[in-house]
Amino acid sequence: MTAHPIFAAPPLAPALMTGLQAIFGDRVQTGDAIRDQHGRSESHFTPMPPQAVVFAETTEEVAALVRLCMAHDTPIIAFGAGTSIEGNTLAVRGGVAINLSGMDAIIEVNAEDFDCVVQAGVRREQLNEYLRDKGLFFPIDPGANATIGGMASTRASGTNAVRYGTMREAVLSLKVVTADGRIIRTARRARKSAAGYDLTRLFVGSEGTLGIITEVALRLHPIPEAISSAVCAFGTLKGAVDTVVQSIQLGVPLARVEILDAVQMRAVNRWSKLDYPEAPTLFFEFHGSPLQVGEQVETVGALAADNGGGAFSWSNLPEERSRLWKARHEAYYAAVNMRAGAVGWATDVCVPISRLAECIEQTRADLDAGTVPATILGHVGDGNFHVVFSIDPKTPDEMREVEAINVRLVERALAMDGTCTGEHGIGVGKQDWLVAELGEAVDLMRLIKRAFDPTDLLNPGKIFQL
Amino acid sequence: MTAHPIFAAPPLAPALMTGLQAIFGDRVQTGDAIRDQHGRSESHFTPMPPQAVVFAETTEEVAALVRLCMAHDTPIIAFGAGTSIEGNTLAVRGGVAINLSGMDAIIEVNAEDFDCVVQAGVRREQLNEYLRDKGLFFPIDPGANATIGGMASTRASGTNAVRYGTMREAVLSLKVVTADGRIIRTARRARKSAAGYDLTRLFVGSEGTLGIITEVALRLHPIPEAISSAVCAFGTLKGAVDTVVQSIQLGVPLARVEILDAVQMRAVNRWSKLDYPEAPTLFFEFHGSPLQVGEQVETVGALAADNGGGAFSWSNLPEERSRLWKARHEAYYAAVNMRAGAVGWATDVCVPISRLAECIEQTRADLDAGTVPATILGHVGDGNFHVVFSIDPKTPDEMREVEAINVRLVERALAMDGTCTGEHGIGVGKQDWLVAELGEAVDLMRLIKRAFDPTDLLNPGKIFQL
Repeated sequence: MTAHPIFAAPPLAPALMTGLQAIFGDRVQTGDAIRDQHGRSESHFTPMPPQAVVFAETTEEVAALVRLCMAHDTPIIAFGAGTSIEGNTLAVRGGVAINLSGMDAIIEVNAEDFDCVVQAGVRREQLNEYLRDKGLFFPIDPGANATIGGMASTRASGTNAVRYGTMREAVLSLKVVTADGRIIRTARRARKSAAGYDLTRLFVGSEGTLGIITEVALRLHPIPEAISSAVCAFGTLKGAVDTVVQSIQLGVPLARVEILDAVQMRAVNRWSKLDYPEAPTLFFEFHGSPLQVGEQVETVGALAADNGGGAFSWSNLPEERSRLWKARHEAYYAAVNMRAGAVGWATDVCVPISRLAECIEQTRADLDAGTVPATILGHVGDGNFHVVFSIDPKTPDEMREVEAINVRLVERALAMDGTCTGEHGIGVGKQDWLVAELGEAVDLMRLIKRAFDPTDLLNPGKIFQL
Repeated sequence: MTAHPIFAAPPLAPALMTGLQAIFGDRVQTGDAIRDQHGRSESHFTPMPPQAVVFAETTEEVAALVRLCMAHDTPIIAFGAGTSIEGNTLAVRGGVAINLSGMDAIIEVNAEDFDCVVQAGVRREQLNEYLRDKGLFFPIDPGANATIGGMASTRASGTNAVRYGTMREAVLSLKVVTADGRIIRTARRARKSAAGYDLTRLFVGSEGTLGIITEVALRLHPIPEAISSAVCAFGTLKGAVDTVVQSIQLGVPLARVEILDAVQMRAVNRWSKLDYPEAPTLFFEFHGSPLQVGEQVETVGALAADNGGGAFSWSNLPEERSRLWKARHEAYYAAVNMRAGAVGWATDVCVPISRLAECIEQTRADLDAGTVPATILGHVGDGNFHVVFSIDPKTPDEMREVEAINVRLVERALAMDGTCTGEHGIGVGKQDWLVAELGEAVDLMRLIKRAFDPTDLLNPGKIFQL
């Protein structure tokens, strides 16, 4: 644990501590270790711990906490699994972190409606294990075993988004504690509605700055009758991307399609002890009836061959599929650990798919001209890709080099009419870029923030500066 | 044309008229006929015409109009094709209607990215005609040949939503004129983004109360290789609904599935000169490869037979498909014109699909107990259905009877965790129900409205009372 100035911050006011203990009993904690754990993120940011951590069990407790902290002019930071990447939960002004991971009840599953209601602290893997014998699944898969509340708050997406959408599409409604401590529900359980402003979508992606999400109703999908996976290496990145574009043009409903560049494939082989060709590679998954899946494999295999793809290695064996996606899910750790003792920095952008090959190729050239090992991998069907750096923390120049590469990456994506963050959110890391991307539209976001949280106490200092 | 008190409203202030003429020249109109045309909706509401109508050609003109009207404390009502149903464009406080239908340029189509950018006045049929030879289509189909801007403003959906989503999913980004006359863009053209609050989804469905949409970027889809349609009559409404639920459970990607009750089928037969069985009926459309479509037809046909369906009459002939969907699109007019000289009243609700059969059956019983002819038809895959009344305008009791039935319909839907409006919006017709549906969450909508439009001049009096 690194010492940090905020450890020396004044303790919370005694009246606030007393109030917290009245609500949470021994579920209020102020030890350095627990505060440090809630002041870190899965990336390169300097830790900024909260002054206290509370562990909530009910929505009513969250509401009581919000009222109490508001009365004491103290920031409140909602915290789930701590897997966000842009410093989204750092306590930049101190305050109380509210850990929601204990609110992990699956409240209801409505199989006939293909939906469920869960508490914010439910993890996505937990949910899918629960759903499996009901023949349903929840498709949003950002890699990390994040909480559903955290995924909603950052508008997470991941490997299945090309077919099943992101948290934007997956969330049906939310239960939210507002800044004045009221408990509201943003929508009914109907699959669609034209009833007023879309509060659900407003809270999705708002990173805990407008209210605290305590329950989430989610759309589910039937587990497909047949699932096949495939892997194919290409001579060029462009050949891989063109294969995907042409597949979509032919109406192939790709369930997953991931691109990993040659450096990422080398890292994956070493980390996961595999022996894939170390070339730009696509990982596919196909869902449907056995007949449909067979047809999809055939169509995409032919397109891959036309675009310089090597062996189109497909399988309908679950163990083969697990091996492939385990390697994909470990890709981040594989990349960070290309060097022993390295620190990771993950960034992502998203561009119109017509510009993706060009964007990736230019980025690869920029990475190759530098000294810090880095990989490219991404959700090619969405035009979204990540760069993961493996940084030597003892070499300050490396951090500066990566910062400069990140600036050029985001500028490149914006110049292609893309976004500075496809799925990680803004947090503290992309604030300047949000303004570069959307200009005066950010003023409208500030209007909403001021209207919802006039004293700026809900996860302050995130997304934009007021 | 009916005389109406607002015709006697004071003319606009001379300075405002002079300002309007400076911007729009002879595209400012104040004649009774044009005002009346902009003060009506396609339903039963008393007309409320604006004091003037302007015809905009550019976003800059819209911005200039907004600044001018704000300076004169005068309401501004954005107007497209005038096909909204809940009185969404009525000039309840007078003011200036801004007709955007002349802003009908298709600005760009990015075939490789499956997207396009259009001006707000483009009609959906115009767009699809333009796209056809590029192999693309825009799926949102609310029936009426509405403008894209109007469809975005009411969060329209329609027959394809079960597979392709609603305007919520279809809109990638918007160009919007804000209440202070600034021109902003809500997002880049990337298919997904986690960059701050979702302003795109906030404006979609806001009915012109937060800003004026002048350009829309839309997701498009490849025209499927094969399309089949089918029609099947059932012994019971429940048999029809169960067929749809089971199809979705089996993962059949239904492109369209519409339910029409026996009364609606009788109206359709008379209006469109057809001879379908006069029983609860499903209209289907299947998209995919020829092989996939064949498989879908086979699966759904078997389920229909299991659920008491009659002949499953399917076809891959375009003329047969056109006949079916022409009849569906004319269903509203067929229903209204069950009686000569009748006036229409259309309402809609949306419930979890597990409650749909029950909701429709109870509603049918309520209609059958009344005296006003009415039909039920809907987007069964979404749990969304419409009731269309054929009201004798010379019998005031009929309007009162329909009002009472509508109250019971919405109460029934809300009791089933549904919404008071699946796709028509709130307008002036469903405001009480919005509060019944969402409670204090409506206060958050008011906060946004006040923050964005402090003097309440953008389509005032819609969605909620401030």
